Amino acid sequence: MPAVSNKGQNMPESPIRKLVPFAEKAYKANKTVYHLNIGQPDIKSPQIAMDAVTNHSLEILAYTRSEGSEGYRKKIAAYYQSKNIPATHEDIIVTTGGSEALLFAMGSICDVDDEVIIPEPFYANYNGFATASGVTIVPVISKIENNFALPPISEFEKLITPKTKAILICNPGNPTGYLYSKEEIQKLAEMVKKHDLFLVADEVYREFTYDGSKHYSILEEEGMDDYAIIIDSVSKRYSMCGARIGCLVSKNKKVITTALKFAQARLSPPTFAQIASEAALQTPQSYFDDVITEYTERRNTLIAKLEEIPGVKVGHPKGAFYCIVELPIKNSDAFAQWLLEDFDVNGETIMVAPAAGFYSSKNVGLNQIRIAYVLKEESLITAVNILKIALQEYNE
Amino acid sequence: MPAVSNKGQNMPESPIRKLVPFAEKAYKANKTVYHLNIGQPDIKSPQIAMDAVTNHSLEILAYTRSEGSEGYRKKIAAYYQSKNIPATHEDIIVTTGGSEALLFAMGSICDVDDEVIIPEPFYANYNGFATASGVTIVPVISKIENNFALPPISEFEKLITPKTKAILICNPGNPTGYLYSKEEIQKLAEMVKKHDLFLVADEVYREFTYDGSKHYSILEEEGMDDYAIIIDSVSKRYSMCGARIGCLVSKNKKVITTALKFAQARLSPPTFAQIASEAALQTPQSYFDDVITEYTERRNTLIAKLEEIPGVKVGHPKGAFYCIVELPIKNSDAFAQWLLEDFDVNGETIMVAPAAGFYSSKNVGLNQIRIAYVLKEESLITAVNILKIALQEYNE
Ligand SMILES: Cc1ncc(COP(=O)(O)O)c(C=O)c1O
Ligand SMILES: Cc1ncc(COP(=O)(O)O)c(C=O)c1O
Repeated sequence: MPAVSNKGQNMPESPIRKLVPFAEKAYKANKTVYHLNIGQPDIKSPQIAMDAVTNHSLEILAYTRSEGSEGYRKKIAAYYQSKNIPATHEDIIVTTGGSEALLFAMGSICDVDDEVIIPEPFYANYNGFATASGVTIVPVISKIENNFALPPISEFEKLITPKTKAILICNPGNPTGYLYSKEEIQKLAEMVKKHDLFLVADEVYREFTYDGSKHYSILEEEGMDDYAIIIDSVSKRYSMCGARIGCLVSKNKKVITTALKFAQARLSPPTFAQIASEAALQTPQSYFDDVITEYTERRNTLIAKLEEIPGVKVGHPKGAFYCIVELPIKNSDAFAQWLLEDFDVNGETIMVAPAAGFYSSKNVGLNQIRIAYVLKEESLITAVNILKIALQEYNE
Repeated sequence: MPAVSNKGQNMPESPIRKLVPFAEKAYKANKTVYHLNIGQPDIKSPQIAMDAVTNHSLEILAYTRSEGSEGYRKKIAAYYQSKNIPATHEDIIVTTGGSEALLFAMGSICDVDDEVIIPEPFYANYNGFATASGVTIVPVISKIENNFALPPISEFEKLITPKTKAILICNPGNPTGYLYSKEEIQKLAEMVKKHDLFLVADEVYREFTYDGSKHYSILEEEGMDDYAIIIDSVSKRYSMCGARIGCLVSKNKKVITTALKFAQARLSPPTFAQIASEAALQTPQSYFDDVITEYTERRNTLIAKLEEIPGVKVGHPKGAFYCIVELPIKNSDAFAQWLLEDFDVNGETIMVAPAAGFYSSKNVGLNQIRIAYVLKEESLITAVNILKIALQEYNE
């Protein structure tokens, strides 16, 4: 029998995948499972976007332009300009989710065995795109004690080699919720210019910032035209994860020309989803205000309740809708499995994401989990209560 | 300024892309351009598929399963079974177009510098997916004199090295229109078993066979479970190119497990498109009968008219909706450009795809073009007439 590739064998599984059979066991045992483990928001998609699809009048569902229609890209550019990001439609390639933008970015700037430095913990699928592209991820550890703030630039510089092509950040961060300050972005900007590297910023959670804090994009920073690549997506912004629309933004023409060739090979992004996403740009500000209010309340409740549990440490997220929680246990993989398999409070339990999968360094984050606060407030309260009782009962 | 990757620089452009500026010049000069160069059918998408989207009642456009919903995959499996292809839903991963299935297949079975043997001329974007995956395409020439039939197995065997991982065929073929016979598929099957290779068959044009000839899938052939990988797509079958739904099919569990990891990294295929594609499976047979009648008539007219032109040789397609045409000229690139830039018949001209882009060998097919018969019959007649006059007037 012919063998699959080493690349394929090395493709990582999602950190949650291992738990799926245990979740299924829990369902079979008729347990109610609170899902703290996934980033699928429970927020409704904007009506205007869903209606645009309902009202479509296409007779032939044809390919669109590989880079997305000019009309849609012009509207995206207007959105960026309203956020102080000086992008024009020529700087934008519409992609099939932020996922594909990440893949195109890696392919456009990295050859096999090239290195990308990423502060960890980081979005686990960066591993998958790196493996698929033959790229090596070099992690630099950020710490829960500092809320996962930017590690000192000297820590990055220690890791730069001739193979380093880029620094990749996620801002605000999944799984940390950390929002980089303007000063931190400026430090990164200075570093990439000094070492002639790309700075790739995954800004898919741009709209989700709390406590009045403002997101500062790498393209708001001056002098970054040659260096900056933004990864974006409608998935979280409009709770339209199933659309599969994102984009890659760069003012570096060579990057755009190169990414466009990857885009042309796969022909075009999905048409219905572009219709929905173009309409979504008209979503009224009140939608976002409501969403931000909702997430802020959830976060406040979640953090307050978690901090009541003895021995638990929590990162204080200022953005996105995740937080990393350190537990008074040794191995969160085993704990997460036990929660599903052997534990319940009146027939209810929780599913959490063990944090080890968000680290590329070995043996880091083993006592941490990631919680996504995409559930209603009362469910979060119940879920944290279950966690509290579980920690009392758990014998490692 | 940081540099883009060599991989990115090596990514091929589409064979038609170079002509786009000249097409734009032709539009500006108010010429009518008959597009013989693209594979975007002019056939309407099935009403039942479009209605399913119009009638959607989603409130949250959520991620689906990475491999596609079980319900949809079960229906795809039933479709395959009706075609004598013994696939179950567990053998199927739903992808974002056949394009993504090709990318997943290459990633799952090839490491960097591994080789895939492909009869040329072949679908040009195989080059893009190969470059993106670091895979080397090894071409084996098929000839217009034999209608682009399968080259002798000995020609393949000469090219097999320890790095060869697969044979990739397109059946029926783009750009050749050639439909492999059962005997040819059996010869390929024997060869891949003997040399322990995968046989990847791009069957996206399965439904488009003419003159009563039947498509024979690599999975209809017995004993191919470990070796066969089918690439499929709704794009052409239902004239739903903009959906971006396809699938990868294999009964080799390791291939499916591996491809699934690539699928998980990019989260899910587009949701609206899956709704349309699932509904499309109920398209009545009469839709296909009409489409086949339409394409058969177009093909007959096209071939007959082309053969009336002195010095022109045409492959006789039995499937898909393309043919390769050999012209009494030296360089079809220059000819195609001239047609757009310097030629017209009463303000009308044609755009064709130079065939060199479909060959991986250098200096082959330079006097050939590909014609897609996705235009109405009377437009095809006019277009071929323009070609005839052009060949009389053209001075190389
Ligand atoms: C940080 C981050 N980047 C990118 C993505 C990819 O999302 P999509 O492909 O749906 O845009 C996600 C999804 O969870 C994410 O959390
Ligand atoms: C032979 C062949 N394979 C695959 C594809 C990819 O199509 P899609 O990604 O739309 O399924 C095409 C599109 O033209 C094709 O001609």
